Amino acid sequence: MNKKIVLGFSGGLDTSFCVLWLRERGFEPICVCLDIGQSKDLNEVRRSADMLGIHNLRIIDGKANFAEIFLTSALKANALYQNVYPLATALSRPYIGKVLVDIAKEEGTNCIAHGCTGKGNDQVRIEMAVRALLPDVEIVDPIRDNSLSRDYEIKFLLDKGINLGYTEDKPYSIDQNIWGRSICAGILEDINLEPPEEVFEWTKSPEVCPNKPAVIEIEFESGLPVAIDKENLSFLDLVNRLNQLGGQHGIGRIDHIEDRLVGLKSREIYEAPAASILIRAHKALETLTLSRSSLDFKQGVDTEYARLIYLGDWFSPHHMDLLAYLRQNQRVVSGTIRLKLFKGNCTVIGRQSSNALYKRNLITYGKGSDFDQRNGTAFSKILGMESFIQSSAQLSNFEQKIERLIQSKNAE
Amino acid sequence: MNKKIVLGFSGGLDTSFCVLWLRERGFEPICVCLDIGQSKDLNEVRRSADMLGIHNLRIIDGKANFAEIFLTSALKANALYQNVYPLATALSRPYIGKVLVDIAKEEGTNCIAHGCTGKGNDQVRIEMAVRALLPDVEIVDPIRDNSLSRDYEIKFLLDKGINLGYTEDKPYSIDQNIWGRSICAGILEDINLEPPEEVFEWTKSPEVCPNKPAVIEIEFESGLPVAIDKENLSFLDLVNRLNQLGGQHGIGRIDHIEDRLVGLKSREIYEAPAASILIRAHKALETLTLSRSSLDFKQGVDTEYARLIYLGDWFSPHHMDLLAYLRQNQRVVSGTIRLKLFKGNCTVIGRQSSNALYKRNLITYGKGSDFDQRNGTAFSKILGMESFIQSSAQLSNFEQKIERLIQSKNAE
Amino acid sequence: MNKKIVLGFSGGLDTSFCVLWLRERGFEPICVCLDIGQSKDLNEVRRSADMLGIHNLRIIDGKANFAEIFLTSALKANALYQNVYPLATALSRPYIGKVLVDIAKEEGTNCIAHGCTGKGNDQVRIEMAVRALLPDVEIVDPIRDNSLSRDYEIKFLLDKGINLGYTEDKPYSIDQNIWGRSICAGILEDINLEPPEEVFEWTKSPEVCPNKPAVIEIEFESGLPVAIDKENLSFLDLVNRLNQLGGQHGIGRIDHIEDRLVGLKSREIYEAPAASILIRAHKALETLTLSRSSLDFKQGVDTEYARLIYLGDWFSPHHMDLLAYLRQNQRVVSGTIRLKLFKGNCTVIGRQSSNALYKRNLITYGKGSDFDQRNGTAFSKILGMESFIQSSAQLSNFEQKIERLIQSKNAE
Amino acid sequence: MNKKIVLGFSGGLDTSFCVLWLRERGFEPICVCLDIGQSKDLNEVRRSADMLGIHNLRIIDGKANFAEIFLTSALKANALYQNVYPLATALSRPYIGKVLVDIAKEEGTNCIAHGCTGKGNDQVRIEMAVRALLPDVEIVDPIRDNSLSRDYEIKFLLDKGINLGYTEDKPYSIDQNIWGRSICAGILEDINLEPPEEVFEWTKSPEVCPNKPAVIEIEFESGLPVAIDKENLSFLDLVNRLNQLGGQHGIGRIDHIEDRLVGLKSREIYEAPAASILIRAHKALETLTLSRSSLDFKQGVDTEYARLIYLGDWFSPHHMDLLAYLRQNQRVVSGTIRLKLFKGNCTVIGRQSSNALYKRNLITYGKGSDFDQRNGTAFSKILGMESFIQSSAQLSNFEQKIERLIQSKNAE
Repeated sequence: MNKKIVLGFSGGLDTSFCVLWLRERGFEPICVCLDIGQSKDLNEVRRSADMLGIHNLRIIDGKANFAEIFLTSALKANALYQNVYPLATALSRPYIGKVLVDIAKEEGTNCIAHGCTGKGNDQVRIEMAVRALLPDVEIVDPIRDNSLSRDYEIKFLLDKGINLGYTEDKPYSIDQNIWGRSICAGILEDINLEPPEEVFEWTKSPEVCPNKPAVIEIEFESGLPVAIDKENLSFLDLVNRLNQLGGQHGIGRIDHIEDRLVGLKSREIYEAPAASILIRAHKALETLTLSRSSLDFKQGVDTEYARLIYLGDWFSPHHMDLLAYLRQNQRVVSGTIRLKLFKGNCTVIGRQSSNALYKRNLITYGKGSDFDQRNGTAFSKILGMESFIQSSAQLSNFEQKIERLIQSKNAE
Repeated sequence: MNKKIVLGFSGGLDTSFCVLWLRERGFEPICVCLDIGQSKDLNEVRRSADMLGIHNLRIIDGKANFAEIFLTSALKANALYQNVYPLATALSRPYIGKVLVDIAKEEGTNCIAHGCTGKGNDQVRIEMAVRALLPDVEIVDPIRDNSLSRDYEIKFLLDKGINLGYTEDKPYSIDQNIWGRSICAGILEDINLEPPEEVFEWTKSPEVCPNKPAVIEIEFESGLPVAIDKENLSFLDLVNRLNQLGGQHGIGRIDHIEDRLVGLKSREIYEAPAASILIRAHKALETLTLSRSSLDFKQGVDTEYARLIYLGDWFSPHHMDLLAYLRQNQRVVSGTIRLKLFKGNCTVIGRQSSNALYKRNLITYGKGSDFDQRNGTAFSKILGMESFIQSSAQLSNFEQKIERLIQSKNAE
Repeated sequence: MNKKIVLGFSGGLDTSFCVLWLRERGFEPICVCLDIGQSKDLNEVRRSADMLGIHNLRIIDGKANFAEIFLTSALKANALYQNVYPLATALSRPYIGKVLVDIAKEEGTNCIAHGCTGKGNDQVRIEMAVRALLPDVEIVDPIRDNSLSRDYEIKFLLDKGINLGYTEDKPYSIDQNIWGRSICAGILEDINLEPPEEVFEWTKSPEVCPNKPAVIEIEFESGLPVAIDKENLSFLDLVNRLNQLGGQHGIGRIDHIEDRLVGLKSREIYEAPAASILIRAHKALETLTLSRSSLDFKQGVDTEYARLIYLGDWFSPHHMDLLAYLRQNQRVVSGTIRLKLFKGNCTVIGRQSSNALYKRNLITYGKGSDFDQRNGTAFSKILGMESFIQSSAQLSNFEQKIERLIQSKNAE
Repeated sequence: MNKKIVLGFSGGLDTSFCVLWLRERGFEPICVCLDIGQSKDLNEVRRSADMLGIHNLRIIDGKANFAEIFLTSALKANALYQNVYPLATALSRPYIGKVLVDIAKEEGTNCIAHGCTGKGNDQVRIEMAVRALLPDVEIVDPIRDNSLSRDYEIKFLLDKGINLGYTEDKPYSIDQNIWGRSICAGILEDINLEPPEEVFEWTKSPEVCPNKPAVIEIEFESGLPVAIDKENLSFLDLVNRLNQLGGQHGIGRIDHIEDRLVGLKSREIYEAPAASILIRAHKALETLTLSRSSLDFKQGVDTEYARLIYLGDWFSPHHMDLLAYLRQNQRVVSGTIRLKLFKGNCTVIGRQSSNALYKRNLITYGKGSDFDQRNGTAFSKILGMESFIQSSAQLSNFEQKIERLIQSKNAE
């Protein structure tokens, strides 16, 4: 009897190849496709499955779970790898790993397969998740483990009489889910070229966007968006709505030289309208409701969070620790942010919060300020004390250097 | 004989008041105005000086020094306070402090005066600099130390027969130099209102910018820009050029809730076209030429650098340490960045560098990659080892929590 | 009728003076003394109170609360300011502030007084707490606000016929509670002198400690000690026990040049046997049960936690965020640490934990290791890739520098 | 003709095996032994070389270079991996890599071999260095690449008629150089056992140390020690002297659960008397001469420095950036630290520096302080402003939580 193996299946060349290769090696592949927003591909998935003789294809609609579990956490942390990439693909990998393990347990096997390349990040992320949830797992990645090429895969399939229509040269390598699209490879590998318009599917070029701005208000409760223009929406609906609207106004195009886990820099194009809008609004609300020391410290948490997600370390105690921080921290991040979307610009034009730490009566230069500015004299003196002490003790070490730097002559 | 006191003089209401107030207290004020790009005000400065009977006004042209000493350092550190504010005013304060001290030494006095408010940052920054350079300084700030109001100042001047034309209500509080303009107070104190167009002088609204993008190439050597479109320019000329061009295309408008040194949040509007363009381009070149660990670590240095500048701690050993790091670090940041400026967007559309760490031959998914993807198998295994170990040892502590989080049902 | 004011009262010169000074200014002081382990002073407190005619002295036994609320949090964070000071005094200030506010509310007043000096940290810490819990508080600190001296205070009291026995010159300034004693001032201000034995009350000098080591086992559950040598103890009893035992063996003497909040360096001597032992043991258990990335990140949390405690920012959302992190993080920190105490040394000599991430079967160099070392080849290759790339691209920039550094001649 | 390959040779079992294995594979091994203080082994090295028929053994005396280049940098950064391990072995690996590459270039080959295990750190460190200095290197590690065992190696050698006297079971795995000894494996793998006295060779147990303390004064210039008790010494002589003296007094024993690069925790014993004493003294001098913000920031630099050394990333631009920081930062770290060494304790008992930022005239509680404590009132008010604002705006979110935490009852 063949050994069952659970395979993450996308219907593309790589995982289609894996099905046949695994069968040939004596495995019985159980093919699983998690739908988290690559929706228009689902028919392609079914078509490939039919051609490959897959009878037990399992398609799981994970969109709502993905939004409500994975994306909400990412938003609380303003998760941007290297301050730029909203981590759409990275966020999906632990979810895929979880589903593969759940089905492996159901099916009574400890074998899991995937079709990731050996120079990418996803191999690491999926295996991080899988090893965390099923420590004694056996993992097979036919393509990577044998360093196979597209040509080889296509020929292997054709030899079995299967023509999925793939060609040796793929113009781009694409992944997408509701949090964003990523496009790389092909001519994008020339980093001195502007990406051609054809790579973008979700966003208009600023040059052809509407001439009239859109203005929206997003309401947040405890760090999460709950309504647009006073209409309550689920997180999933809200993301879909903002992808649509933001794309129309050219929001969320990203072109980045990114450091992969394996130590290579790669050039990646992303489209992420909803993620861009939500993170912009969320940060604006945080500057209003979190104290200076909270903002300072949270910047480090956010950076760590993005690093952890990029690595795929979702199912770890460390992640749960960060989540505990974020959950507590976000309790005061409630209020409404007004945004203007216009030809690629996403601008905050209004802020309201009952938790606001901005106090007009203290800061105003107008009459009736509650702040006695005489306190400034002593405050400046005490802050300046370290300057004074260092200078008295050590200035001679540095004086010449300063003088060389600045020579305040040039009098009129 | 009256005691000499060196006064930072801008010709505005506050420092004009200080002149008379100081004279009345028996000081002989020596008025100094450092020109770092507020140029159109210089005539106003002279006019006020005449009305106040100032005979020894010293106007110092510091624009080139400011650009080449202060702004170059800030650019190397991508200096943005709270990731947003390019620190134009903050960068000028230590320079002003240095000039005041130089002239005090020339004039043989240890008395220095300024007219900063007690609830702002500038009092701290100027005094940090002054105390570092002249440890036994005596500082007088008539307005803050006595908590005086605009009304009081105007009336005091009128009583002496001087009408500078100021009114009790000032629409905005403005500061500017070649690195940026800042505008606050007045109706901007209502944080739920979009700033009216009248506050902007350097930048066009994206809505009225040219319909044709501008494309420019900025060449960097060791972290600093040296040419635009192959034309070599001094840093000062380059900044002026980019302020002009960027302003035309709506680049560099910033609207921020900012944490002041005194612990108050304030709402600040900034215009900084050149700073925005240069930092954008500089960061893009860094992602290409610095390693992942350099980029990670430098983010912490940049944050600290911005904090230090915001505080005004320029003349400190700590600052010199950071500069030493930056100088070494930036040696490889050479190359050319191509940018498209269009209706508020400043987009990187090309990168070239002989120091690039991006290696197409390694990353390519095309044929002939020099990277053997079989290495990925062991790499993923070793990265996943901690997952595996934690999970074997501690999963039971967390399993329930994970299950509550995700329930991968919803099968089709 | 006199206005009620709640005064933190220690029975010492400063707060005794405050009582009379406040009465003279028309206040009715309500004197509160929080007992958190300065116990032997309580009789002195009562004696002073009698002499001053205080009829409403309130002594509150806060030892258990202090241990179970304040010290447990500090231990989870291994809280050491500047890696050295266990923060005993700092931890007590928010508790005192809380008690003062509670009683102020009971008594229906918003006036609170204390007797802290203006160059120390405690003024800030107490006022941070008090302002957080009673935003409209009015705070009076007679000594600081009027810059009074000991002489003045003594004379003032004598003039009223009260002689508390204080003299102008105090040999040391001392504070203590169950988490530690601090001693400063007097001849300790000479930083080139070893502290004289007379300053130490809790700890023996290593030179006169027993010649036989003590060995103890401390059991932790979720980051907190629950038993010594299998005897379950409350946190308070456990701290008292370890102060006793550790002091006998010379553990916990600290001599530190410390940066105060007001920007001055001061020389502080501390005795903290229990804190030193518990933090040592707790850290040892963490290295066993937390992953590398948790340990790395927690180091930043611990540093921030100590900074926050030193500042006195206990009643802040930021503190609660850190606590949420710590609570989650510490769930796996369970196990037993065996320690040897000997003449000033506190050495970990055994560790056990069912959550241990140390896996002998993987790490062993003996036979039967479960780790296939061939994975190391690919792992080293991938880690070395960045070296290789940087070197190919940028080595020429650095080669000379390296050569100047090392010249591997000197052949035999 | 056989291909030349440069082999790092220690004379132990592993590298002896490599010699024969490489010859059998058609290589001509050039054996190199870098002497950095494992000195007593040099005769063993020569003996093994003779038995193996090595005619071109090159022994290089690198002790002075190692001290003056590698150890000085480490000391400036107080380099302690995970705050504990002084990195002796880690510091030697880049130096070995450099020597191997230098000789490979001399000999006109690009082949380099070593005998590191696949589960340790040294494979990575040596290869990091080698790839940085010779990007097109070919690396052979016979033992790791083929996952060989001690038994196999011994049998392989015996089959060739060579008996080096090694047995299958090695009690410990040891490495040493002038900065420290490391001992692991064998019964040390049982983390609940105290290390037996036999593992220690450089340090006495505190229990048998002299009853009389040693007191020494170490003078530093710009962060580096230059004299002991006023006798000027080279860094190498100074390290040797302190290893001797410190060992006598039981200083520098370390017992640590450490996170290796490959993701495994291992138990390591170290002896490092000189490193422990020097880092202790150096830190004490830093607290005196560096400002609070320098100390805070440098802690992050030091942590990063230790991480980088542990990884073996010496020949990287990132390392040179950190060195530039350290060089500038250490310019003021000059002065003299007096230490008492006694039965395992290394205590700072005196400090002197002309760059000291400690100012007795400001901090003193005695008469004549130059600090006006009235400034404290405003300072506390301004620091407390954020407390006040947060509390006014957000306290209701937290009040219940605080109340649950503390209940200040228990009145007497």
